[in-house]
Amino acid sequence: MPVFSAEDLRRAGRRLLAACGASEEESGLVADELVESSLRGLDSHGVVRLAMYADHVRDGTIKPGAPVTVVKESASTALVDCGGGFGIVGALKVVEIVAEKARASGLACATSLRLNHVGRLGSFPERLAARGLFGLASTNSPRHGHFVSPWGGREGRLATNPLAWAAPTDGAPLVMDMSTSMIAEGKIRVLLQEGSPVPEGSILDADGSPTTDPGRFYGPPRGTILPFGSPRLGYKGFGLGLLVEILGSALSGVPLTPEGQPSGYGNGLFLMAIDPEAFGGRDLFRRLVSEFAAYVSTSAPAPGAGGVILPGALDAATRERRLREGIPVADETWRQIREAGRRAGIEL
Amino acid sequence: MPVFSAEDLRRAGRRLLAACGASEEESGLVADELVESSLRGLDSHGVVRLAMYADHVRDGTIKPGAPVTVVKESASTALVDCGGGFGIVGALKVVEIVAEKARASGLACATSLRLNHVGRLGSFPERLAARGLFGLASTNSPRHGHFVSPWGGREGRLATNPLAWAAPTDGAPLVMDMSTSMIAEGKIRVLLQEGSPVPEGSILDADGSPTTDPGRFYGPPRGTILPFGSPRLGYKGFGLGLLVEILGSALSGVPLTPEGQPSGYGNGLFLMAIDPEAFGGRDLFRRLVSEFAAYVSTSAPAPGAGGVILPGALDAATRERRLREGIPVADETWRQIREAGRRAGIEL
Repeated sequence: MPVFSAEDLRRAGRRLLAACGASEEESGLVADELVESSLRGLDSHGVVRLAMYADHVRDGTIKPGAPVTVVKESASTALVDCGGGFGIVGALKVVEIVAEKARASGLACATSLRLNHVGRLGSFPERLAARGLFGLASTNSPRHGHFVSPWGGREGRLATNPLAWAAPTDGAPLVMDMSTSMIAEGKIRVLLQEGSPVPEGSILDADGSPTTDPGRFYGPPRGTILPFGSPRLGYKGFGLGLLVEILGSALSGVPLTPEGQPSGYGNGLFLMAIDPEAFGGRDLFRRLVSEFAAYVSTSAPAPGAGGVILPGALDAATRERRLREGIPVADETWRQIREAGRRAGIEL
Repeated sequence: MPVFSAEDLRRAGRRLLAACGASEEESGLVADELVESSLRGLDSHGVVRLAMYADHVRDGTIKPGAPVTVVKESASTALVDCGGGFGIVGALKVVEIVAEKARASGLACATSLRLNHVGRLGSFPERLAARGLFGLASTNSPRHGHFVSPWGGREGRLATNPLAWAAPTDGAPLVMDMSTSMIAEGKIRVLLQEGSPVPEGSILDADGSPTTDPGRFYGPPRGTILPFGSPRLGYKGFGLGLLVEILGSALSGVPLTPEGQPSGYGNGLFLMAIDPEAFGGRDLFRRLVSEFAAYVSTSAPAPGAGGVILPGALDAATRERRLREGIPVADETWRQIREAGRRAGIEL
């Protein structure tokens, strides 16, 4: 497996996207964001997406240069049409809008229309936390991503629907980023390729029977992923998944049903920011979150565990290591990136 | 076990609270709210709390008639001092404040200071949904409620920290109300009294070893409840629990550490409302949520399940049945209510 420095991957990603027709600014934002995910070990949201984005530009799903426009707003809300451009570019614009409104109003949220795949959701609340704000985010997906069965059902009706939040501390922000299902679809695909079983209690086959065989999930006929908390507490994950659907689509006025859904767009983003200055104060908030993180971390380690792991801590450790040792990229991923480059007329 | 009509329990509750010094309005709000929880089968948040509240009035923890005041606000935010009155009275006032601001600004949130036990958390977003708004709520608890171990730890550092949301539909609102732990402490106490085991994977003993023995949870030394999603995905429940702590205390400027925490007050409430009118529109939102609930419900039943169960559906069914058949109240609960009445000089 080839290993690259972050800088080499950023350069390759920017060149590829620019060759596909993205502006210098877009290429930089998107490539840097994907490399950042790879640095943190979140490979399913990392440079593996470069070739996919290049494909989407070619087939017209992603429209480089599409304007991002606020179609409806108040002092603390915005409905943002991302115009079908790069999802990461659209989401970063939404971050700016929400941060500015939260700074002025104490609280702000925005939802998106025509937003393509945004990559790592946690990135957006994390950017709010870097400005001293509290951030909360979720994204849903259109029908083709409905892998997750509702509580009591055996047919997919929800996407893996991640939720993320971030809060500033005296050090790096706390960043929580979780799917509301038992496992991400991308991870099942990796297990299928490896010939490994899926952790027990994660998936059902098409008949609704529990299985650990990734082949029985993909079918056909296709099985489903169980909602987070299954089997006993799956109603909680189902409820969280519904929350994400409602915030990602219904709030924006986008039909959630298969018939009504616009095709092609990846994510319905909900992003909220709270300025602690409107409550107990920004500095005090940062200090109290830091103190609580420290207090929680004093819990003696559970048997077999190395101690309390705060949200984002494992990603941060991977980032440090990969900055030093480089980012391993699967042969197939690198092959696809080079092939996408060749189709766009460059050699990577 | 005696069975009462909702009306009889409301009357008894109002008389008890009034005899303890609550105003007619307070007695009505609190008793009605607790009976509503009992109607839905949420007995741990129902009339079992009447005697507890009476005790708290007597020992000064609850101060009937305490004013609820907004100590800091903007068009879309409020920091509300609930003054140590009845928690339900304070939380209902927060609902009014948030609803009014959301109607005016499209989005609003509030947090609380000096708020006693609020009962069923889902009640507050549900009241927002009844006005066509989307509602989100959470509550944390002070140190004595830190039953839940953080991910990787074996000592309690979090409360069971519920999260709730509600959205309007063409029928009853969807209402999700969940703890961020594997089980509520109140349920473990019931299992202890019954001599029943706790479901596997829910609790640790004081050494951090998994157990199903409720006696080993209570100790001494006390064990802990695992975060929701344990064992494999407990980091998600831990992250959700941290979110609730941060919104419930740090945002308001209330120290989260044991040393810094004000004693006696039950809950740090975070309540948010979004007016869909600021996005896709209120009527469209209601219709789209209804359509999505219907679409989700078409998922064929999983083996052994009766079909999809939407958030709040089981509670609503229990409510219908208990309205017809009455509310069973445990002998011990009724004994405590009568005793509390006698101490306050009335016969129930």
